[in-house]
Amino acid sequence: MGDGRVNHTALKEFTTKVFTKMRVPPEDAEVTADVLVTANLRGIDSHGVARTRRYVDGLRDGVMLAEPEVKVVRETPVTALIDGGAGLGQVAGVKGMRLAMEKASEAGLGFVTVRNSNHYGIAGYYSMMALEEDLIGISMTNAATLVVPTFGKDAVLGTNPLSIAVPTGKERPFVLDMATSVVTRGKLEEYQRMEKPLLGGWATDSGGVPTDDAGEVLRNLRDRSGGGILPLGGAGEDLGGHKGYGLALLVDIFCGVLPGAAYATHVYPRDDRGEPLPSNIGHFFGAVRVDGFRPLKDFKTSMDDVIQLLRNSAKAEDQERIFIHGEKEFEMADQRMSDGIPLHPKVLKDLQQIGEELAIPYDL
Amino acid sequence: MGDGRVNHTALKEFTTKVFTKMRVPPEDAEVTADVLVTANLRGIDSHGVARTRRYVDGLRDGVMLAEPEVKVVRETPVTALIDGGAGLGQVAGVKGMRLAMEKASEAGLGFVTVRNSNHYGIAGYYSMMALEEDLIGISMTNAATLVVPTFGKDAVLGTNPLSIAVPTGKERPFVLDMATSVVTRGKLEEYQRMEKPLLGGWATDSGGVPTDDAGEVLRNLRDRSGGGILPLGGAGEDLGGHKGYGLALLVDIFCGVLPGAAYATHVYPRDDRGEPLPSNIGHFFGAVRVDGFRPLKDFKTSMDDVIQLLRNSAKAEDQERIFIHGEKEFEMADQRMSDGIPLHPKVLKDLQQIGEELAIPYDL
Repeated sequence: MGDGRVNHTALKEFTTKVFTKMRVPPEDAEVTADVLVTANLRGIDSHGVARTRRYVDGLRDGVMLAEPEVKVVRETPVTALIDGGAGLGQVAGVKGMRLAMEKASEAGLGFVTVRNSNHYGIAGYYSMMALEEDLIGISMTNAATLVVPTFGKDAVLGTNPLSIAVPTGKERPFVLDMATSVVTRGKLEEYQRMEKPLLGGWATDSGGVPTDDAGEVLRNLRDRSGGGILPLGGAGEDLGGHKGYGLALLVDIFCGVLPGAAYATHVYPRDDRGEPLPSNIGHFFGAVRVDGFRPLKDFKTSMDDVIQLLRNSAKAEDQERIFIHGEKEFEMADQRMSDGIPLHPKVLKDLQQIGEELAIPYDL
Repeated sequence: MGDGRVNHTALKEFTTKVFTKMRVPPEDAEVTADVLVTANLRGIDSHGVARTRRYVDGLRDGVMLAEPEVKVVRETPVTALIDGGAGLGQVAGVKGMRLAMEKASEAGLGFVTVRNSNHYGIAGYYSMMALEEDLIGISMTNAATLVVPTFGKDAVLGTNPLSIAVPTGKERPFVLDMATSVVTRGKLEEYQRMEKPLLGGWATDSGGVPTDDAGEVLRNLRDRSGGGILPLGGAGEDLGGHKGYGLALLVDIFCGVLPGAAYATHVYPRDDRGEPLPSNIGHFFGAVRVDGFRPLKDFKTSMDDVIQLLRNSAKAEDQERIFIHGEKEFEMADQRMSDGIPLHPKVLKDLQQIGEELAIPYDL
C-alpha cells in the first residue's frame, strides 16, 4: 500500500505462495498463512509473517516437513492423540482443533493432544475456531525454553501460552490469549531495539538475579549461559512468581507430557554437531459444548452481562477504560483490515528477499 | 496436645461433631471436617478449621442449609450440572468431583459444574481426589468479590482459585492450587497483625492506587468503599496484571456463568436490609483419563522425569531449592500429621467456645 502498510489479503496470498513454493500442499499453505496474518491483524506481530523466514529455513533444512503424514494415533469419542509428522504446527494445530470441536459437537467435550509438531503461531487462533460453532475453545502449546522456574538459574520452560475463547451474545467474545511468562521474548527484543531498561521482574541475568539489560538476557538465552524470562508474577514468590511457574509447567504437562511430545529442555533438540533436529513440540486443544450445563442462550446473556458489569465498573484514578480480554485485538484487527498492516521495514525486506529466492512476484 | 498443637484426628472428630450438632448428616459432616482439616495439614490455615465459626453462623442463620437437596439437574455421559441446594460447599464439591471422576473413568473425560453452593474450602482437596484413581483432577470456584480488574477501582471479582492435580510415578503428584489474585485476603490479614507494610503490587486503596496499608485495604473491602486485592501480575499491564485478571474472569466464567450460579458482584448477595442471602457460589470440577492420550505408565515416567529435571536444574544465586507445586504442602502435612497442627490461640478459643455453645466435649 506504499506507506509501509500492507493489505491483509495480499499479504495472505503472498505468504500462501511462499509455502506452496516450499512444497506445502495448497490447503495447508493457506491455513498456515491465515494463522500468521491473523496474528498481524490482531497486533501480535512477533507471531505474524515475521516468522516466515524461520519456517522457510526449517522446511528447507528438513527440520520441518512440507508434506507430513499427520495421523490420529489414539482415539475415543471424546479424546484423541495426533502425530503432527514433524510438519508445520499450524497444519497439525488446525486438524487437532477441528477434531476436538467435532467430538465436542457430538459428545459434549473434546480433548485432542498433538505430538511431533512445530511452532503453531498464536494460541488464540485455535481457541477462536471454536467460536464459529458456539463452543468454548481451549488451546495451549509448549515452546522453546526461555523461562526460569522460581529460584532457578537456567531457562528450562517455554513461555508456554494458553488461550481460552468463550462465546457471547451481543458482546465480542472473551478471548484470553497469554504467555504464562511475565513477558515474551518479543518484548525483550523491542526493549533492546529501543535501548530501554527492562522492568524489574521481567528477566534474570546469568546468575539468576533480576537484571534490566535486555541485550544481556537475549544473548544469554541464545548461548544458554543462564538466566532468562521470569514467569508471570516475577522473581521469587512475593508477587506470585511460583504461580506463573506453575502455569508454565501445567501447560508443558498438557502439551508435552500428555501427548508424549518433548517437554522442558527436550524441545528443539540438537544433534551432536549442534544442528537442529525436529522440535517435537506438543499442543493441546479442547472444546466444550455449553448446553451440557446450561442453555446456550442463557449462557450468552450472562456472558454479555458479566462483560458489561466489568466494563462499566468504576475506573482507577487516571484510568478511562477497563478492557475485556480479546477486545484490544478485535479493535486492532478492525483497524488493520481497513487501513492495512504496518510491517516493520526489516520484515518487509525479508519478505521481499524470500520472494526473490523463490521467484514469487512481490507486490506488497 | 497441650502446646498449642492439635492432633489432626482429634481435630477432625471435634469438627465433625460440630457439624452433626448443626444437623448436618454424619457423612456430610465428616466430609466437611475432612476438607477443613486437610487445609490445616497442608498449611493453608486460612481455609482450615478457622472457618468453622462462619459455617456454624451460616447454618444457624439459614443462609447455608444443613440438609440440602443436592441434585443433578442436567447430565450427559461426560458432563453434568449439580444444584448444591444452598448446602455446605464441601458437600456439593465432593459430590461434583466424584461425578466428574466417574464420568472420566467411564468415558475418558468428565466435567461437572455446581450452582447454588457455598464456600468449598481449598480447591486442591477436590483436584487431589482424582489422584486416587490416577486421573488428572481440575477444581475451581468463584468467591467473594475482593479483586480489582486491571485499571479498575472497585473489587468486582473473587480471588477465584484454580487447582490441577496430576498423577506421577515415584515422585509426589504435581498439585497446583493457586488463587488467581497476587495474594489472598489471609495474607493481608497476616500483614495487618504484624503491622508490616504490604508489598507494591498487592493491593489498591479506595481510589484504585497501589497502597501498602493492609488495614485500610481490609477496611475498604469490608465497607465496599473501593480498592482491593490486585490480580496475579499486579497493577496495570507492565507485569502482566491483565493476565491474572483474565484468569480470575475465566474461573468466574467456568464456575459462575457456565452453571448459572452467581458471578462477579452477584455472589454473596444481601437483601434490602443488608442481611446475607444464600451465596449461590459456583464450582467447576474436571477429570481426565490419561490413557486417552498415552499409556498411564509412560505418562507417569515422564512426569517423574520433568519433575526431576526441574528440581535438579541450576539454582539462582543464594537459592538452594526449586520446588514442584504441592511439594511444600505435602511436606507440611507429613510434619503436622506427626507433630500436630499449630492452631492460632484465637482459633483454639473460638473452637472451645463453639464446643460450649453446642455442648460438645472440647479436649483438643
